[in-house]
Amino acid sequence: MNEGLHHIKITKTNNIKSGEFDDVVAIEAPLEIQIKLAEEQEPRAISVTMRTPGDDEELALGFLFTEGIIQNYKAVKAVKYLGENIVRVFLREGESINLQNTERNFYTTSSCGVCGKASIEAIHTISQFGISSQLKINPDILYSLKDKLAKRQSLFTLTGGIHAAAIFSIEGDLESVQEDVGRHNAIDKVIGDGLRKGLLPLNNKILLLSGRASFELVQKATMAGIGTIVAVGAPSSLAVELARENGQTLIGFLKESEFNQYA
Amino acid sequence: MNEGLHHIKITKTNNIKSGEFDDVVAIEAPLEIQIKLAEEQEPRAISVTMRTPGDDEELALGFLFTEGIIQNYKAVKAVKYLGENIVRVFLREGESINLQNTERNFYTTSSCGVCGKASIEAIHTISQFGISSQLKINPDILYSLKDKLAKRQSLFTLTGGIHAAAIFSIEGDLESVQEDVGRHNAIDKVIGDGLRKGLLPLNNKILLLSGRASFELVQKATMAGIGTIVAVGAPSSLAVELARENGQTLIGFLKESEFNQYA
Repeated sequence: MNEGLHHIKITKTNNIKSGEFDDVVAIEAPLEIQIKLAEEQEPRAISVTMRTPGDDEELALGFLFTEGIIQNYKAVKAVKYLGENIVRVFLREGESINLQNTERNFYTTSSCGVCGKASIEAIHTISQFGISSQLKINPDILYSLKDKLAKRQSLFTLTGGIHAAAIFSIEGDLESVQEDVGRHNAIDKVIGDGLRKGLLPLNNKILLLSGRASFELVQKATMAGIGTIVAVGAPSSLAVELARENGQTLIGFLKESEFNQYA
Repeated sequence: MNEGLHHIKITKTNNIKSGEFDDVVAIEAPLEIQIKLAEEQEPRAISVTMRTPGDDEELALGFLFTEGIIQNYKAVKAVKYLGENIVRVFLREGESINLQNTERNFYTTSSCGVCGKASIEAIHTISQFGISSQLKINPDILYSLKDKLAKRQSLFTLTGGIHAAAIFSIEGDLESVQEDVGRHNAIDKVIGDGLRKGLLPLNNKILLLSGRASFELVQKATMAGIGTIVAVGAPSSLAVELARENGQTLIGFLKESEFNQYA
């Protein structure tokens, strides 16, 4: 995943000396997500997101799905990264999107993922999958997840500036992982990958987040039917509330031999 | 700032035992930002952001200013938190906003802060302030900033789930600090506070960020004329690029006796 890294010269200073060094930073670049309806000549620009390049097609699919703009992968005829930070999703004939939602009523917002919802009441996006989190997970399996993720995280280790999202089986096997400067993008990428491979709903999987768990991330997980969310960092109040309402298992502050269960 | 905390019961598990505990999580709740033009009957809803309650008026002002929707505080007749997670900014007679930008051309996006820009080219919002970062800052002053911030951070310490943004003088005196579940909100709050108090541009100040430095955060700092940005975490490639283009000083990985200068 070294395509996500950028090499630059920086000045390192400590209390003894100061000098120039080669360093790497995580690439952050805009991606325009477009939808092309079969019945229309021109594609519609749906979103611009700041992301780490790589798996942009999965990102676009995951974003459109978790935001409720497309309902399934069958609606998609093709998805193609066009270059110049643009990805276009071609829908099949007869497939439509709720343009009222995506254009007129959407607000601009500085909040990840709740962008464009026409009112506070509309923030809940309804998932098509039921949540069944009656799964009993062995704590020892939870303790092992961070290590397994770390072994697969490349960008994070190098730059310290990347979030990861990973899907594990209930037995603790790492099935897919994505890294991005945006936490929401990392989740959209793993969900988009699952959508493309026909793996949804992910209701018997564990979603591991390298950082905090916000409302938005729980929301996106819910859209994919994920019943168990494990975060290395803290959850927010609304993330806890939503997970409790959904009947999801929400774990935070996952450490080597310790965790907190919030829902 | 304990209004930003929510008390809940959680289950703590470690490799020896498991039990119920009282815990606190940072509150995350939606805030609808409205603008009321003097010439119109109805207010316009501009944005819904997920934020930690507190200083919502400053958040609204800072958001509208750093997104280029309002140009100065003189345009504002009043700003009022209406309750129920709604804040309304009343503009004076004759004052307008670029409604094309805020409504029709804005995209929905999962990216913080670059939401709603009508194209990738439009991501740069032009600041009305020039940047002059010819300031020479003593490394010892930089080393002291984290400690000074930590002494004023309440939510972060308790919940581990909060970002902080702080304004320091060049001499290292802490002048203002804000905490929020969203990094962009913390910055909008400090900038909105400065806007309200007539302190802009903040060109001879240091902005300290408790986390990473993304494009969006550098962008918001630029709108307020901030020349020196210091992050405890890593910067992204685009943050570095923008800071270099602007002539800003950008420091990352600030530690007790060490830092990296990226721009």
